[in-house]
Amino acid sequence: MQIAIVLYDRFTALDAVGPYETLGRLPDAETVFVAERTGPFRTDTGTLALTADRTLAEVPDPAIVIVPGGPGQSTQMDNAPLLDWLRTADATSTWTTSVCTGSLLLAAAGLLTGRRATSHWLALDQLERFGAQPTGERVVFDGKYVTAAGVSSGIDMGLTLLGRIAGDDYARTVQLATEYDPQPPYDAGSPGKAPTHIVDRLRARSRFILT
Amino acid sequence: MQIAIVLYDRFTALDAVGPYETLGRLPDAETVFVAERTGPFRTDTGTLALTADRTLAEVPDPAIVIVPGGPGQSTQMDNAPLLDWLRTADATSTWTTSVCTGSLLLAAAGLLTGRRATSHWLALDQLERFGAQPTGERVVFDGKYVTAAGVSSGIDMGLTLLGRIAGDDYARTVQLATEYDPQPPYDAGSPGKAPTHIVDRLRARSRFILT
Repeated sequence: MQIAIVLYDRFTALDAVGPYETLGRLPDAETVFVAERTGPFRTDTGTLALTADRTLAEVPDPAIVIVPGGPGQSTQMDNAPLLDWLRTADATSTWTTSVCTGSLLLAAAGLLTGRRATSHWLALDQLERFGAQPTGERVVFDGKYVTAAGVSSGIDMGLTLLGRIAGDDYARTVQLATEYDPQPPYDAGSPGKAPTHIVDRLRARSRFILT
Repeated sequence: MQIAIVLYDRFTALDAVGPYETLGRLPDAETVFVAERTGPFRTDTGTLALTADRTLAEVPDPAIVIVPGGPGQSTQMDNAPLLDWLRTADATSTWTTSVCTGSLLLAAAGLLTGRRATSHWLALDQLERFGAQPTGERVVFDGKYVTAAGVSSGIDMGLTLLGRIAGDDYARTVQLATEYDPQPPYDAGSPGKAPTHIVDRLRARSRFILT
């Protein structure tokens, strides 16, 4: 059983590493970081690179597809080889998933049309324009399609999907092993909770965050 | 201002990426992944590699030092070049920090003697044997020394330290940008909350998790 995590230039590291560190602990599964070419891919900050070990062509039929988001997503929306691979992989996948604006790539590949889905809160309008039905939930299941909200939500998605596949007790074991007992020092993690002036500040800068 | 995140073989990815994705958004700071040599370093699962862009010698005096943990930490406890670098960097750092069993490396370097500190819950006894005073808190401040509990706690540490340095509003902005509004599907993230049989299972396997 293969779990393929897709990389591309200027992705957001935690989008990929959240599901990797949780769902990637699935027993008897092989996690593979894939991209159009093998080698290092720089994240959105430019200060970190993660390695793709296999090309997309080398991993044609993973059981689970995970597409992270990040500013670089905007440059991939008309990348035919990537979108073709997503469609082909999805044809045989058990689960097709995304974190953050990774859902826009699934939508651009035509995989979320008419489906309930989510994305980074700043990208929900765009997700709707691509034919999906955005919801306000942090992790959204619609059949085998699982989409998560912004960046850090991939940890919650990974644990949720791990529980569905390997059972609640196994997922709890991974939660305890990773000591995922979150205690944020602030309560500003969603637009409904953050102070208005901070929400407004990010909306005004959304172009720089999303592209 | 440099933020140096230390890599070594078989570190745990989220230990490094949690602080990177939060504290690494500090304005006017340069995050640098450092190690004994440059190039890719494999994580504990072997399925992912992160790149060290600079050698330890090239980054002698970062303002912030971040040491992740992971099973590979156990092989670094008598690595003189790394421990020497930690001591030298600490001599001029503003903050010296760790996530998970990274605190054992700080302790092995003699930097946590008599200090309040934490680590992965399975490693608290070992931390005490190295002269620190373990606490049950998720993020522990003792002067400029900041240690976080297991794996995912580096996100909370990163945001907390970001708030101390750049102000609460800036940290809240990063929290909202990364949509850090955690909603774990289970409440098993600490030994006090997880079912006893799961805590016991991990204790029995602690050697494999820690080394």
